[in-house]
Amino acid sequence: MSTHSLLIDGAWRTSVGTATFQAINPATSAAIPGSYPVSPWSEIEQAIGAAARAAAVVRSWPGERFARFLERYADRIEKRSAEFVTLANQETALPVEPRLAKAELPRTISQLRQAGTAAREGSWRRPIIDTTANLRSQFEPIGPVVVFGPNNFPFAFNGIAGGDFAAAVAAGNPVIAKGHSSHPGTTRLFAEEAHHAAGETEMPAGFVQLVYRTAHADGEKLVSHPLIGATGYTGARETGLVLKRAADQVGKPIYLELSSINPVFVLPGALAERGEALADEFSGSCLMGTGQFCTNPGLVFVVAGAPADAFIQLVRQKFESAPVGTLLSGGVLKHLDQGITALRNAGAEVLTGGQAGGGAGVSYRNTLLRVSGERFLAGSKALQTEAFGNSSLIVVARDAEQLVQMLDALEGNLTGAIYSAQDGRDDALYERIAPGLRQRVGRLLNDKMPTGVAVSPAMNHGGPFPATGHPGFTAVGIPTALSRFSMLCCYDGVRASRLPLTLANKNPTGRLWRLIDGAWTQADVG
Amino acid sequence: MSTHSLLIDGAWRTSVGTATFQAINPATSAAIPGSYPVSPWSEIEQAIGAAARAAAVVRSWPGERFARFLERYADRIEKRSAEFVTLANQETALPVEPRLAKAELPRTISQLRQAGTAAREGSWRRPIIDTTANLRSQFEPIGPVVVFGPNNFPFAFNGIAGGDFAAAVAAGNPVIAKGHSSHPGTTRLFAEEAHHAAGETEMPAGFVQLVYRTAHADGEKLVSHPLIGATGYTGARETGLVLKRAADQVGKPIYLELSSINPVFVLPGALAERGEALADEFSGSCLMGTGQFCTNPGLVFVVAGAPADAFIQLVRQKFESAPVGTLLSGGVLKHLDQGITALRNAGAEVLTGGQAGGGAGVSYRNTLLRVSGERFLAGSKALQTEAFGNSSLIVVARDAEQLVQMLDALEGNLTGAIYSAQDGRDDALYERIAPGLRQRVGRLLNDKMPTGVAVSPAMNHGGPFPATGHPGFTAVGIPTALSRFSMLCCYDGVRASRLPLTLANKNPTGRLWRLIDGAWTQADVG
Repeated sequence: MSTHSLLIDGAWRTSVGTATFQAINPATSAAIPGSYPVSPWSEIEQAIGAAARAAAVVRSWPGERFARFLERYADRIEKRSAEFVTLANQETALPVEPRLAKAELPRTISQLRQAGTAAREGSWRRPIIDTTANLRSQFEPIGPVVVFGPNNFPFAFNGIAGGDFAAAVAAGNPVIAKGHSSHPGTTRLFAEEAHHAAGETEMPAGFVQLVYRTAHADGEKLVSHPLIGATGYTGARETGLVLKRAADQVGKPIYLELSSINPVFVLPGALAERGEALADEFSGSCLMGTGQFCTNPGLVFVVAGAPADAFIQLVRQKFESAPVGTLLSGGVLKHLDQGITALRNAGAEVLTGGQAGGGAGVSYRNTLLRVSGERFLAGSKALQTEAFGNSSLIVVARDAEQLVQMLDALEGNLTGAIYSAQDGRDDALYERIAPGLRQRVGRLLNDKMPTGVAVSPAMNHGGPFPATGHPGFTAVGIPTALSRFSMLCCYDGVRASRLPLTLANKNPTGRLWRLIDGAWTQADVG
Repeated sequence: MSTHSLLIDGAWRTSVGTATFQAINPATSAAIPGSYPVSPWSEIEQAIGAAARAAAVVRSWPGERFARFLERYADRIEKRSAEFVTLANQETALPVEPRLAKAELPRTISQLRQAGTAAREGSWRRPIIDTTANLRSQFEPIGPVVVFGPNNFPFAFNGIAGGDFAAAVAAGNPVIAKGHSSHPGTTRLFAEEAHHAAGETEMPAGFVQLVYRTAHADGEKLVSHPLIGATGYTGARETGLVLKRAADQVGKPIYLELSSINPVFVLPGALAERGEALADEFSGSCLMGTGQFCTNPGLVFVVAGAPADAFIQLVRQKFESAPVGTLLSGGVLKHLDQGITALRNAGAEVLTGGQAGGGAGVSYRNTLLRVSGERFLAGSKALQTEAFGNSSLIVVARDAEQLVQMLDALEGNLTGAIYSAQDGRDDALYERIAPGLRQRVGRLLNDKMPTGVAVSPAMNHGGPFPATGHPGFTAVGIPTALSRFSMLCCYDGVRASRLPLTLANKNPTGRLWRLIDGAWTQADVG
């Protein structure tokens, strides 16, 4: 059986490692032909060296160069769409339509193009010029970026094609992608196109590189290597925290998107007013993509009473009647089962589901759990265990007072939603819930479920720990997402001929916004 | 002997702790009358609780409220200038004129006013509005901020008056200040004025608080407490790294300004052209403030030859003839001696100085060391030991080639300077040095010493680890410095009446810059 090559230092190379792995089709549990190498440290080191050399070459390039690469890459992916969708479907069991073909791949292509536009436009640099002191500063590339892609978005968060990749490149950095082991073939296809696009747009060898897998200890060495600028990681909390510790020890920025259970507060007036519609909306959001979204609503707060009982009853029926989707992998199934077991052990009652099976291939029954407000407050840490997949926990607070108390027990999350009545009867309670929830989440929603993550400059896909490692950064939303992969660079008395173009007296594009002597302007200096 | 009170939860309180300490006048080594408490954990916890309550109250206040406090505080400090200068001089031995009275205090007052202007103006929030998706985001206060002030700037970096304090407050956060033990009296005076200003501008109790000292373990608990938003720390590397570890473990942002030795490259043409002037400039910069600046030039690279020999000889003479200043404390003296011993042990030769004494009170002779390029490359880690004070190490590279090799051995620093000839003969070499140096420092200088840190929006007082904990943030420069104490907050479908003013359709001041549907504008939405 053939083992696929790695993309290292501008060429497809046979791995020097001996260990290999195969992708598994979760719909059939069968191995997909072709194996992928586990890279030993020597190979990772080679990639790091090549990335550092590439970084030195491109560091002062204008954004136009990175835009051209990103746009060419996007075009190439688009031309090969059918192949991407077919292979990703095999590797992940995510539906071809609408998910892969109509939603995720177009989104991925659009992200790359948006990143290209941002690179060309340059405002992510936030140039500031003080002509009196002759001080000029801007954000510049941070150096080679390592991107660890997750299992649940084979396209949009792929290590070599997704949001982190696009942001890192747009900010002028080479990327070493670590593909996720559950969809190595899809990742390989991306790397092929990235490699072609890099050649066509004359990017240096080592600008885009791909390794499929490496030992955990080598991952730690990678993110903390002196030549690495920063790391983007989306995935499981435990692995992420190990990488974080390694990177933190040597002061290397690492941006993590870890677990999030996305609390939803359904206030009593909303439940009374439109409980049935909300049950529909919630079930749809929770079971979409078999619940395998970072923004899946995994924790719902309601206040005890007849409307809450009716809501729970309706959701339960919907969970029971909805088809059970196929999970991404046996690993996801195992973690989901462990998560649900942890919730049960902490006192949550299973209303429906709670066991494997029910769908095609790797699957777990749609699972709804319930716990009282008292119990939640008494064991809030365990009851916030993530059960990643088609599962959610409903917390029934005794009264509005207890609902407000829940806030203090909440961990950091990507999102937090509040549903309130249209007629204003929940407004006073909203005002007691919203400020505390606001401080604990990156995105606050009103009257909608968190699962849609629009790729918009105004999006924040981030939030306080443990949802991410730092609440000041977002993984989605261009140009803000670029900040993660940049460093602040000041030029003090640097001679005019030596300044970067974006800090020169003349505005390089005539359209770049710069803060000159205290005023934002697109004009030249002087 | 009376023990001074703490400022906790809006009142001056007697510490419940039993341990106390006194400030020492470094010019006389005599204890200054009055003692200061070492706070037990219960007291720190009280401050945290009060700060969290204050944060909840002020979170949605308009910037105007913070501006008023900062400006009132600045006015009050200004009125009491003479007292501040006298006490700080006693506690630190820093000269009254020009340093304390003409430079540092005016700068501190100006920083507070600049922060006030930034709070009122609001552009640090970077509001982004997407009207199609009804997504709106901006940076908002991160929550209570802990500020650890350093020993070397009793005013400008003081925990309750300096740059971190001003930035944290301007971004809407309460501050718990941990004063530096070497100048508790100066810090107490600031706290008195901050408390008055807070009362006059109706800030809530717990908005500004002061503790003087606490056990190291309690410091770790403080920076990692669930109710704390972030920490700013300026000081010694070892202590900073311990706090960093504690904060990192629970994902609490901590901004550190640790050690920096600020490499200066003097290229051969510059030396030949103006060696004498450079010797003057370097000696002045290195000995100013008895070398106790974070941007002190502690490492100088030259290329072997007659101009280098002459330069070194001149610097040596200047170090020998210049008066020896008084150091900030016995602790600084001890660390300086340890640093110089480490450099000697690593192979550096003492050209002059190298022992305690020579000045009034706590002092150490102006110390110049020299090492060859070979030795530096062989022991670069030890030879980058910070010797904080009136000391510098000159590295003599064999030739230009070896000078370039030095770059790979350099740690992250706040600044890096390159002196080159005016006639262009160093330009080729400059181009080989600058890119590598650029990546390793926050501020790149041409033909000037790094010791002046202008308070300008274009300043970057930051840099790669171990100079700081993250190269994307600056401790000086408003409004950029405010970013550290903010979190990104997105509003998704949030009803219009519930939006923060700065994200409402109407531009709240008519002057706030916002990115609306892809265009920066001061206009209203729609």
